Amino acid sequence: YLLFCFSFLIKGSVTIKTLVFPSETSDSYVEMVPLKPLQLKAFTLCMRLATELKGEREVILFAYRTGDYDELNVWRELDGRLSFYLSGDGVFFQVPELGALKTHLCVTWDSSSGAATVFMDGRKSLTKIYKKGHTIRAGGKVLLGQDPDSYLGDYDAKQSFVGEVCDVNMWDSVLPDRTIKDLVSGKRVQRGNVFDWETIQLKISGTVEVIHREL
Amino acid sequence: YLLFCFSFLIKGSVTIKTLVFPSETSDSYVEMVPLKPLQLKAFTLCMRLATELKGEREVILFAYRTGDYDELNVWRELDGRLSFYLSGDGVFFQVPELGALKTHLCVTWDSSSGAATVFMDGRKSLTKIYKKGHTIRAGGKVLLGQDPDSYLGDYDAKQSFVGEVCDVNMWDSVLPDRTIKDLVSGKRVQRGNVFDWETIQLKISGTVEVIHREL
Amino acid sequence: YLLFCFSFLIKGSVTIKTLVFPSETSDSYVEMVPLKPLQLKAFTLCMRLATELKGEREVILFAYRTGDYDELNVWRELDGRLSFYLSGDGVFFQVPELGALKTHLCVTWDSSSGAATVFMDGRKSLTKIYKKGHTIRAGGKVLLGQDPDSYLGDYDAKQSFVGEVCDVNMWDSVLPDRTIKDLVSGKRVQRGNVFDWETIQLKISGTVEVIHREL
Repeated sequence: YLLFCFSFLIKGSVTIKTLVFPSETSDSYVEMVPLKPLQLKAFTLCMRLATELKGEREVILFAYRTGDYDELNVWRELDGRLSFYLSGDGVFFQVPELGALKTHLCVTWDSSSGAATVFMDGRKSLTKIYKKGHTIRAGGKVLLGQDPDSYLGDYDAKQSFVGEVCDVNMWDSVLPDRTIKDLVSGKRVQRGNVFDWETIQLKISGTVEVIHREL
Repeated sequence: YLLFCFSFLIKGSVTIKTLVFPSETSDSYVEMVPLKPLQLKAFTLCMRLATELKGEREVILFAYRTGDYDELNVWRELDGRLSFYLSGDGVFFQVPELGALKTHLCVTWDSSSGAATVFMDGRKSLTKIYKKGHTIRAGGKVLLGQDPDSYLGDYDAKQSFVGEVCDVNMWDSVLPDRTIKDLVSGKRVQRGNVFDWETIQLKISGTVEVIHREL
Repeated sequence: YLLFCFSFLIKGSVTIKTLVFPSETSDSYVEMVPLKPLQLKAFTLCMRLATELKGEREVILFAYRTGDYDELNVWRELDGRLSFYLSGDGVFFQVPELGALKTHLCVTWDSSSGAATVFMDGRKSLTKIYKKGHTIRAGGKVLLGQDPDSYLGDYDAKQSFVGEVCDVNMWDSVLPDRTIKDLVSGKRVQRGNVFDWETIQLKISGTVEVIHREL
């Protein structure tokens, strides 16, 4: 079915829709409809998430796939590192483990310099040089919850997301560090121009609960 | 002996009494005298603590026991998870390890929904449903430092608290997330109505040092 | 060669020079020229750093050596603990692991009380009593990147620093907790009187890149 909803401002506190993936499945996922094609030479992708999956377990956090390529996949790796892949080998970051506490995670990349960084709760990582000159291709689909090994299929429960995720926003540029710190504290300084969680259209499959939580 | 003391406001910085448990014992503990009976259908319990105990070691963080029941015990589990127990099986949260850095920890629970969460330094966990409809019983005693396996007795050194703890406050309701964030940064927005650390009456047994530290 | 440079204020965001040690070596280091002799009965030493070295690996974070003594060495220990040594045995703190995310680290020590603490991103550790009455001797050299086992020599690649470090500042007193929190958020409330990163003179040896990054 199709879901279309808004966040509400109540007495200075923000209520936000949150997706709950209650258990490991190979068929529960949420497709996010973008505001523009994902032909990208730079991006900032942010989300808030909590997952108690740990130990030797890969977890897909964001999957954008076109016909033949995993264009942009964000992972929690087997060893707890965060990584992202732009159609090919990935780039890895040794960061604190995801867990029951909600983490505000951002990933940034810029083709012209190849600069790749992650932010957790506003703390920036060191910078890695990755896929300088590359362009992400348009025309695919973006999923939360599953990693499609073919175009919208071949899901593996052992890589699925279990936990809570919300506030998924994406920009076609690298935001300043200061702006990302403002996002962490809930200031809506700049709405995503690729994905804007406040107005986003979600297509839900399988068992995913949509609840509203204080930010 | 009986201790009754206040915190002081000095040039914008707050000095607060802190309990230091310097070593593993089976007889050092602090009883906290509540402002009202602990017959509770909801609560927020907060404290600041640091402990370097780790590895395969349980650590009691808060113990409220009536004659026959562990009414509300908060633990650092063997595997590093945080948990709390309302007379029976507990609820567990995969969170960053406690350590030498002081952590502002809160636990919230609401009987009507069963919603249970923890906060570490203002970061909220995902929500778990636990003991919906339950009521915590009045008439017991609250201890820091030891877990009584019978009414005020049978302490186990291997579960005792070693480290520093202060700013233990408790409310008979679930505070808004925003209020908890304010507490972390030292804003005294709302004093605890079950325990208020600024005016609390403490009964100290064994070797526990009381010092004053900047918050 | 000799490096002497400034940080720039751009539209409310601060750009700061950052040292990148790209790989494990036994000959890459940076000497920092102090503003005054390091005859110290108290200090606060702060820096921002990120390193993905982990597992069974010692990492030198700051080394001040006179002819015969390691006067003040700050380490990431084999087991991930942070420590510092004032000519002899050290003091250890069980803290979250250093990693790819930049950490604002401070170490404070006061001879009169022996109080030793660390701060990570403004979070203060419990207090340890260490080397009460001791005085750090003047007349040595301060290095980033290597631990000299003799006076400016005998470097061990297996202890070298790999990663990014910037904003290294030092004071000859213990700063208030509040001031350290302000430093974390980038407020230049008080410039270091032993080392001031904004105007510091650096002498670089080996392969160390100097880049400018947003704070």
